[in-house]
Amino acid sequence: MKPKIDINCDLGESYGAFTMGNDAAIMPNITSANVACGFHGGDPVTISRTVKLAKKSAVAVGAHPGFPDIMGFGRREMQLTREEVEKYIIYQIGALQQFARVAGMSLQHIKPHGAMYNMAAKDSKLADGIIGAMRAVDMQLIVFAPPKSTLAKAAEKAGLRTAYEVFADRAYNSDGSLVSRSNPGAIINEPKKVVERAVKMVEEKAALSVDGKIVDFVDIHTICVHSDTMGAVKLATALKKGLVKAGITVEKVGKFV
Amino acid sequence: MKPKIDINCDLGESYGAFTMGNDAAIMPNITSANVACGFHGGDPVTISRTVKLAKKSAVAVGAHPGFPDIMGFGRREMQLTREEVEKYIIYQIGALQQFARVAGMSLQHIKPHGAMYNMAAKDSKLADGIIGAMRAVDMQLIVFAPPKSTLAKAAEKAGLRTAYEVFADRAYNSDGSLVSRSNPGAIINEPKKVVERAVKMVEEKAALSVDGKIVDFVDIHTICVHSDTMGAVKLATALKKGLVKAGITVEKVGKFV
Amino acid sequence: MKPKIDINCDLGESYGAFTMGNDAAIMPNITSANVACGFHGGDPVTISRTVKLAKKSAVAVGAHPGFPDIMGFGRREMQLTREEVEKYIIYQIGALQQFARVAGMSLQHIKPHGAMYNMAAKDSKLADGIIGAMRAVDMQLIVFAPPKSTLAKAAEKAGLRTAYEVFADRAYNSDGSLVSRSNPGAIINEPKKVVERAVKMVEEKAALSVDGKIVDFVDIHTICVHSDTMGAVKLATALKKGLVKAGITVEKVGKFV
Amino acid sequence: MKPKIDINCDLGESYGAFTMGNDAAIMPNITSANVACGFHGGDPVTISRTVKLAKKSAVAVGAHPGFPDIMGFGRREMQLTREEVEKYIIYQIGALQQFARVAGMSLQHIKPHGAMYNMAAKDSKLADGIIGAMRAVDMQLIVFAPPKSTLAKAAEKAGLRTAYEVFADRAYNSDGSLVSRSNPGAIINEPKKVVERAVKMVEEKAALSVDGKIVDFVDIHTICVHSDTMGAVKLATALKKGLVKAGITVEKVGKFV
Repeated sequence: MKPKIDINCDLGESYGAFTMGNDAAIMPNITSANVACGFHGGDPVTISRTVKLAKKSAVAVGAHPGFPDIMGFGRREMQLTREEVEKYIIYQIGALQQFARVAGMSLQHIKPHGAMYNMAAKDSKLADGIIGAMRAVDMQLIVFAPPKSTLAKAAEKAGLRTAYEVFADRAYNSDGSLVSRSNPGAIINEPKKVVERAVKMVEEKAALSVDGKIVDFVDIHTICVHSDTMGAVKLATALKKGLVKAGITVEKVGKFV
Repeated sequence: MKPKIDINCDLGESYGAFTMGNDAAIMPNITSANVACGFHGGDPVTISRTVKLAKKSAVAVGAHPGFPDIMGFGRREMQLTREEVEKYIIYQIGALQQFARVAGMSLQHIKPHGAMYNMAAKDSKLADGIIGAMRAVDMQLIVFAPPKSTLAKAAEKAGLRTAYEVFADRAYNSDGSLVSRSNPGAIINEPKKVVERAVKMVEEKAALSVDGKIVDFVDIHTICVHSDTMGAVKLATALKKGLVKAGITVEKVGKFV
Repeated sequence: MKPKIDINCDLGESYGAFTMGNDAAIMPNITSANVACGFHGGDPVTISRTVKLAKKSAVAVGAHPGFPDIMGFGRREMQLTREEVEKYIIYQIGALQQFARVAGMSLQHIKPHGAMYNMAAKDSKLADGIIGAMRAVDMQLIVFAPPKSTLAKAAEKAGLRTAYEVFADRAYNSDGSLVSRSNPGAIINEPKKVVERAVKMVEEKAALSVDGKIVDFVDIHTICVHSDTMGAVKLATALKKGLVKAGITVEKVGKFV
Repeated sequence: MKPKIDINCDLGESYGAFTMGNDAAIMPNITSANVACGFHGGDPVTISRTVKLAKKSAVAVGAHPGFPDIMGFGRREMQLTREEVEKYIIYQIGALQQFARVAGMSLQHIKPHGAMYNMAAKDSKLADGIIGAMRAVDMQLIVFAPPKSTLAKAAEKAGLRTAYEVFADRAYNSDGSLVSRSNPGAIINEPKKVVERAVKMVEEKAALSVDGKIVDFVDIHTICVHSDTMGAVKLATALKKGLVKAGITVEKVGKFV
């Protein structure tokens, strides 16, 4: 059987006159869109347009909830209570889901944004808040999480479907965490390199860390591409082609997880 | 047949540590709660608690969307595009609806907040944006609007159920608009006076304006009480009792509009 | 005597990860920078960097206060009280002035942003609020205003120095107001055309409106270039060169108003 | 020589229609006001009124900068970069200072708010950011910090005047940190107890921790009273009287630190 993979991207993060990413050009090259929900980016007009854009390209829509921090783009750690996390995520899912419903779609998944994603990989209070929100809203939602992360384990324990996510354009530490954006070598911009890396990751369910160790992912369901890195569109186009050429089926994760 | 009336109140407007109103004490005395949705007040934790509180008192829940202006509490006019109005309201309805769904409830109505309510009474672009959002979301939703207002007419034209709303604790101009809060005599605080006024309004479907003219409301379906005026709880309690005592049936507007 | 003109540009409008304009490239081509102060754009880190950038290019720094509306980028009309306008502007001037002081600079001018600028051209309550803030803070500040506008008149009456501002890349209506951005032909992108237009405006203190009438500006002290239109840098470069070539002295407005 | 003490209170934290505390009643009972600067609370109109109120009562004004988090009232930890901390504080000091200047006053001190205060007691990156802002702005400013804290040490190293602050209405852990508000017994409401505790603290420069250990403060310069706890006004009144009665001089910290 051919291996399967989903390609996801964070989209809809523009905020009024502040534009972020190149959503229209990225959309045809991905299978799952993580749509910002207004807390770190994504005003309602942008959300509405992004959902319609996803529909046009038959891309699955998921919620991309973040910390309430426009100024920091949700990239700064915040210490919220368990209740705050759960309610903030229910709120954001609800808002996005309404636009999906208006467009005749339903949500496929949840992927926490930025610092919330990174923290939930290790912090069980935060992971429990995210899982609590998903349980309250819809047990059919899939959660995107790093393989072996606290979030992935909490989701599996709760009986939620989990998609293990890897980043083909980001370097890994040997413990499976991402090398911080502020470090040199954290972001891989060269499309050819990213594609080779992605194909290998999917085939081997593993990656090489910055210090040359093997990072075993156990399984891989979705690859994240960024829309705000330089050459993001070229990279996404190359990635999809490269994966298909390598005999890998590229389709939305809801079909096979 | 006995006349029927709904009593509504704006609730859930606290914002984190900033508390507004006395929701728990007001709730048992009303039949419809207009729940803030996060744009002028109402953080997600507050929304969640308010919805649960409404359920406990068997009070119907409606969305109370406002302009995106926490600092101005949605009381300042903003000029938004038709698209912005529609999407901002879809967003706010969606967020609230999710909490209602989690609590096993569904939304009964929409009542725009503050400056959005006042503007929509006269401004057809704004009224169309509100109606557009309701049509997109759910044609069963009832809109709360001043009798004869632009919003009420737009809703009726669109085939939406409309509840004519009056304010028993606010003075009216002869054209049916509310006397501005900044004018003396705009707010009526004396409970006895408010109750007498309310009973008369429901029975006569009319009121006396500040300058002694008769304001004909054609029909009246819901009376608004405020939770942030002095003695709001006493007033709400007195109002419900007074209406019942006068032989008027007090029940949620969804049952009779 | 050679005519003199200042070239100003709205800068420092980025907001955290949301970038706006191309400040570093524009700066060497202007003489006055209108620096966003955090209400419509401009987080503190951006403000600090923009002030330092201005100092490096010997560009004068002014405050560019806006309505408290990040989502609408201060481009939407808001109805504030006279007191709110005054205090919001004192706040924004104070914040920016602190960064200027830290960099060893002082503020040259105030230019209201977006909807606040457009409204103040006609609305005396808003104009009075702006003037009230300037009187409270520093009578040496220069206000940028459209020629003959309500704001210009209020400033002159208060004894404040006023710089009449024109837009070389925007079309004018015959009443001296700008053609709305949403209309075709509102923005002039062709650098050669903009430069010719600018030179003629400075020499004749007048412009041709979209419907072919002469708009008499009485006097012109500063020309605004935008940093967020396509080809803004090329345009600014061409403008400065073109004005100098036409024998016009390009220098900061504080030197000659 | 009689011991001296300053009484400080967090004021000006209302935000538009959202009121917080009872500033007018508290003001006559304190000697230093920590005025919110807009990031966790305190809109410009509130700031302006609070500064005028302080002037009327001859109370010294200080900046009370917080994290940019209105929804969380600055009580939630946020991980900012060193540069963000410094620039956010320069911004907030500048805004407040402008209102002080307009009122003919100058700032006496800086006291970080909420989570920023608690974090800076231990986190040197945050403490350095605060000190960096103060050095850039005005070396005469006094910083309020817990005795022996990382912030106090950083301030002393930088040559800034430091006021050691204690909380008479909060319980202490044996390490000198405050018992978290979420724990029972964290807040002491009984005025008599608070006054006795305060007098003893000032006389002995020490306190008893919740588990009965002596917390040595080395020195104490200012006592914080809260304006948002129940009976805050009574408590503040009782505190001032009690301290004076015990022979302690109550005056603004700028006079004796």
